[in-house]
Amino acid sequence: MALGINCDMGESFGLYRMGDDSAIMPYITIANVACGFHASDPSVMARTVKLAKKHQVKVGAHPSLPDLQGFGRREMKMEPDELVDCIIYQVGALKGFLDREGVPLNHIKPHGALYGMAARSEEVAHAVAKAAAVFKVPLYGMAGTFHEKVYEAAGIPFVSEFYTDLDYARDGSLIITREHQAVEPEAAAKRALRAVKEGKVKSVDGVDVPVRADCVCVHSDTPGAVEVAKGVRETLASYLE
Amino acid sequence: MALGINCDMGESFGLYRMGDDSAIMPYITIANVACGFHASDPSVMARTVKLAKKHQVKVGAHPSLPDLQGFGRREMKMEPDELVDCIIYQVGALKGFLDREGVPLNHIKPHGALYGMAARSEEVAHAVAKAAAVFKVPLYGMAGTFHEKVYEAAGIPFVSEFYTDLDYARDGSLIITREHQAVEPEAAAKRALRAVKEGKVKSVDGVDVPVRADCVCVHSDTPGAVEVAKGVRETLASYLE
Amino acid sequence: MALGINCDMGESFGLYRMGDDSAIMPYITIANVACGFHASDPSVMARTVKLAKKHQVKVGAHPSLPDLQGFGRREMKMEPDELVDCIIYQVGALKGFLDREGVPLNHIKPHGALYGMAARSEEVAHAVAKAAAVFKVPLYGMAGTFHEKVYEAAGIPFVSEFYTDLDYARDGSLIITREHQAVEPEAAAKRALRAVKEGKVKSVDGVDVPVRADCVCVHSDTPGAVEVAKGVRETLASYLE
Amino acid sequence: MALGINCDMGESFGLYRMGDDSAIMPYITIANVACGFHASDPSVMARTVKLAKKHQVKVGAHPSLPDLQGFGRREMKMEPDELVDCIIYQVGALKGFLDREGVPLNHIKPHGALYGMAARSEEVAHAVAKAAAVFKVPLYGMAGTFHEKVYEAAGIPFVSEFYTDLDYARDGSLIITREHQAVEPEAAAKRALRAVKEGKVKSVDGVDVPVRADCVCVHSDTPGAVEVAKGVRETLASYLE
Repeated sequence: MALGINCDMGESFGLYRMGDDSAIMPYITIANVACGFHASDPSVMARTVKLAKKHQVKVGAHPSLPDLQGFGRREMKMEPDELVDCIIYQVGALKGFLDREGVPLNHIKPHGALYGMAARSEEVAHAVAKAAAVFKVPLYGMAGTFHEKVYEAAGIPFVSEFYTDLDYARDGSLIITREHQAVEPEAAAKRALRAVKEGKVKSVDGVDVPVRADCVCVHSDTPGAVEVAKGVRETLASYLE
Repeated sequence: MALGINCDMGESFGLYRMGDDSAIMPYITIANVACGFHASDPSVMARTVKLAKKHQVKVGAHPSLPDLQGFGRREMKMEPDELVDCIIYQVGALKGFLDREGVPLNHIKPHGALYGMAARSEEVAHAVAKAAAVFKVPLYGMAGTFHEKVYEAAGIPFVSEFYTDLDYARDGSLIITREHQAVEPEAAAKRALRAVKEGKVKSVDGVDVPVRADCVCVHSDTPGAVEVAKGVRETLASYLE
Repeated sequence: MALGINCDMGESFGLYRMGDDSAIMPYITIANVACGFHASDPSVMARTVKLAKKHQVKVGAHPSLPDLQGFGRREMKMEPDELVDCIIYQVGALKGFLDREGVPLNHIKPHGALYGMAARSEEVAHAVAKAAAVFKVPLYGMAGTFHEKVYEAAGIPFVSEFYTDLDYARDGSLIITREHQAVEPEAAAKRALRAVKEGKVKSVDGVDVPVRADCVCVHSDTPGAVEVAKGVRETLASYLE
Repeated sequence: MALGINCDMGESFGLYRMGDDSAIMPYITIANVACGFHASDPSVMARTVKLAKKHQVKVGAHPSLPDLQGFGRREMKMEPDELVDCIIYQVGALKGFLDREGVPLNHIKPHGALYGMAARSEEVAHAVAKAAAVFKVPLYGMAGTFHEKVYEAAGIPFVSEFYTDLDYARDGSLIITREHQAVEPEAAAKRALRAVKEGKVKSVDGVDVPVRADCVCVHSDTPGAVEVAKGVRETLASYLE
C-alpha cells in the first residue's frame, strides 16, 4: 500500500478561522474533514470538500464528541450506542457534501478525545467500528491500541497513522494537548521519514518507540503547519502513491 | 399518484419527549424525520428511522433553520448558500441512518419557519431546491406558493401537502404558530377528505379556499395527535397507495 | 436550622416540557433552578423565578456541565478553572432574573454529573467552592463526600441533602441514572421522615446507611413527582421552617 | 460628559481567536464584552474581565441574538419577551465575572443584528430597554434611531456611539457586514476627530451626514484594529475623561 499524508482540515467555524487549509491542501494527499461537532459548520464543510476536490485530495470524515467549546478535546462519558449514532450523524452529514461534488468517502478518523478514548477503551473502539461498518470505509488510528485490535476484529480495514507533529510517550501512546505546540519543519520531516523507513520514533523521554506509518499525519492548527506539511511532502515524495 | 399521510416525526431531544411517535406511526404512510437543527439528536434519529422501517413507513428529511430553542419556528436571515449547506448537512446526516437500515430517502420537507420562508421567498425556495437536487428526491410543500413554482422550475418533483390540523388564511396560506392548537379528530378527518375529494378547505374566516392534497399532513405535537392521525387514516383508507 | 424541601425546577427547554413545576411548587420550600446548560433557556428561567416568587419559594442556582443533549448527566473532563467559570456564568445568568424580581440567591447546587463528580473529586469540589465564593451563598450537597469536606474547608456553608426519590448504594453514595425511576409517594415520605428523624436510609441492597438531611430533595422529572412532593411536604410539615 | 473609546472585546471562543484584545485594551477606555451568544464562552469572559480591570477599562455587556455560527449578525424573529429574557441572561452571566473582580457593570450595548434591529424596530428597542432597566445602566446606541427615542423615553440614559471603522449610508444608518473591512488608521482617527468636533461624517456616497459621538467605537475584528485603536486614542486624547 502506498503512503499518504493526511491532515485535519475544515476546522474553521462561522467567522472563526483555524488553520490555513488553502495553504496546506497542496501538500497533503488525504484530508480528514471536521463534521461540525468539534469544529466546522455546514458552510465550512462545503468549502473544504470543494477545496480538497480541486487539489485531488481524498476526503475522510473526522467525527468528534459533541463539544464545540472544547474543540472535541475533553473526554465525555457517552453510552456506546449514543456514540455510534453520534458518529453516523456526522459522517452522513459530510457525505451530503461529498455526494454533491461526486467525491467518494475515503475513510473515517475519530477526532481528539474520541480518538484517544477509542485507543484506550475496547467499548469505545467497538462503537467507532460499528459506525464505520455503515459506510464501508477504513478507519485511521494508532497501531498497537484498541484501534488496531478492535477495528480489525470487526473486519474494518485499519490504517495506522504516524503523528509527525505530536509527542509520543515511552509506551508509544500519543500526548494530546488542547493546543498544539510549534514544531520545527525539518525535524518533523525527518521524524516522518524515519517512521516510514525504520518504523521508529524517539519518545519525549528519549527512548526509541516502535511505530507503524501507513499514513503520516500533520495538523493544521500547529503553529507553522504549512511549512511542516511542505517539508513532509517533499521528504516523503517517493513513497507517496 | 396515490395519496399519502405524512407526519413530522422524531422531534424528541435528549430526555425531552415531543409527540408520541410509536402511537402515530401505525396510522401514517410517510414520516418527515427531524434532523437535529430544530429538534432531535443522533440517537432520536436512529430510533425514529428504525421505528418507521418497522411500520413500512417511508422516510423523508425534515430539515430546519438552526434553532433548537425556537423549534425552528423563528425566522432567521441566512445567506442563500449558507441555507443550501445547512439543508445538505441535515439531509446527509439522516441518510447515514437510512443507509444503516437500508431504507431509501423518500423526500425532503423543510420545517417550520424555513417552510414558510420558502413559500414566500423565491430566493429561499431556490436554496431548498438546490439542496434537494443533490439528493434527487421530491420536495413537499404548498401548492400556489414559491414551493410549487420554484421547485418545479428547478426540475424537482413537487408534492402538494394539505395540513389537516392547521388553519388556513383567506389567501390560502398556512397560519403557523409556535405551539399547535388542539383539533377535533372527526373534524380533521372530514377536512382531509374534503381537501382530497373536492380540493377545498374552509379558511379561518369561513371562506372556501382551493387546496391541492397530494399528501395529507398531521402533526405529532398537536394535542390529540394520535386520534387525529387515526381518524384521517381510516377516513382516507381507500385513497392510500 | 429548620428543614427545607428542595426540588430541581425549570428544566423545560423551548417547546419541550420537563416536570410539572406549577403543580410541584406549592409543596416545596426551595427551588434549584436550572441555568441553561443541562436544561432551561432564558424564558424558562424567567418564568420559573416568577413562579417561585409567587409561592414564596427560595431560589438557588442549579448549574451543570455544558450538555443539553445529555441533560448534564454525562461526565466531561473539564479543566478546574474552566469549571469555575462555567458555574459563575450560569449562576450570574440566574441572578439577572432574580435581580429583576427582587429575590435573593439562596444557594448553589451542582446538577447531575457535576454533582457526582464534585462528590468524588477533590479538584472538582474545589472548583465548585471557588464559584460559590463569588456569590457568598451556601452549597447543597452530600454529607460524607468531598462536598462536605471541601466546601466547609473553603468556608462555604454546607447544606446536606437527602434524596428521597433516588437509591443509595451500600457506601452511602447516590445511584444516578439518566432517567429517574418512579417511586411510591408514601414510601418516599416515610424514607424522608426516617432520614430526618433517625439519620438513616435503607440502601438498594437492604443495609441501613447513615445520612444527614438538612434538606430533603425531590425530583420533578421522577414519574409521579407531584404526589411524592405532596406526601413529603405533609409528612415533614412540623419540621419545616 | 467626557468622551470614551469603546471596543467590542472578548469575542474569542474556545480555541478560536478573534481580535487581539491584549493589544487593543491599552488604547480604549470602555470594553463591550461578549456574553456567549454570538461569541465568547465562560472562560473567555473571565479572561476578558480580568484584562479590562488590569487596564482600568470600564466594562459593559455586549449581548446578542443566540447565534454563534452567524456571530450574531443574522436577524432572527424573536418574541419581545423572549428577547428581554435573552438579554437579561447574558448580562447577568457577565455580572458574575464582574462581581468576582469587584468591577461594576458600566453599560449595555446590543451586538450586531440585535443592534441593527433595535435601531429600526420600536418593539425590539423596547425589549432592550426593559432588560437594561433591570441592571440600571446606560445603553449605547445610535442617535437618531429608535435607540435614542425608545431608550430615553424609558428613562434609560443613552450614549450615542460613532463608528469610526464602519461606513455610514446617506441616511445616517450604519452599513453592517458579517466580516469587517480593513480601514486606514490615520483616516479612521481623522473621521473620529471630525465626528467629535464637528458632529459630521462622510457617507459612502460622499455626503456629509450628521452624527453624535458621545463615545467612539472601534472593532477588534477589523483588519488592522490595533493600529486603528492606537490612532484614535492618540488623536482624541485631550477629549477623553
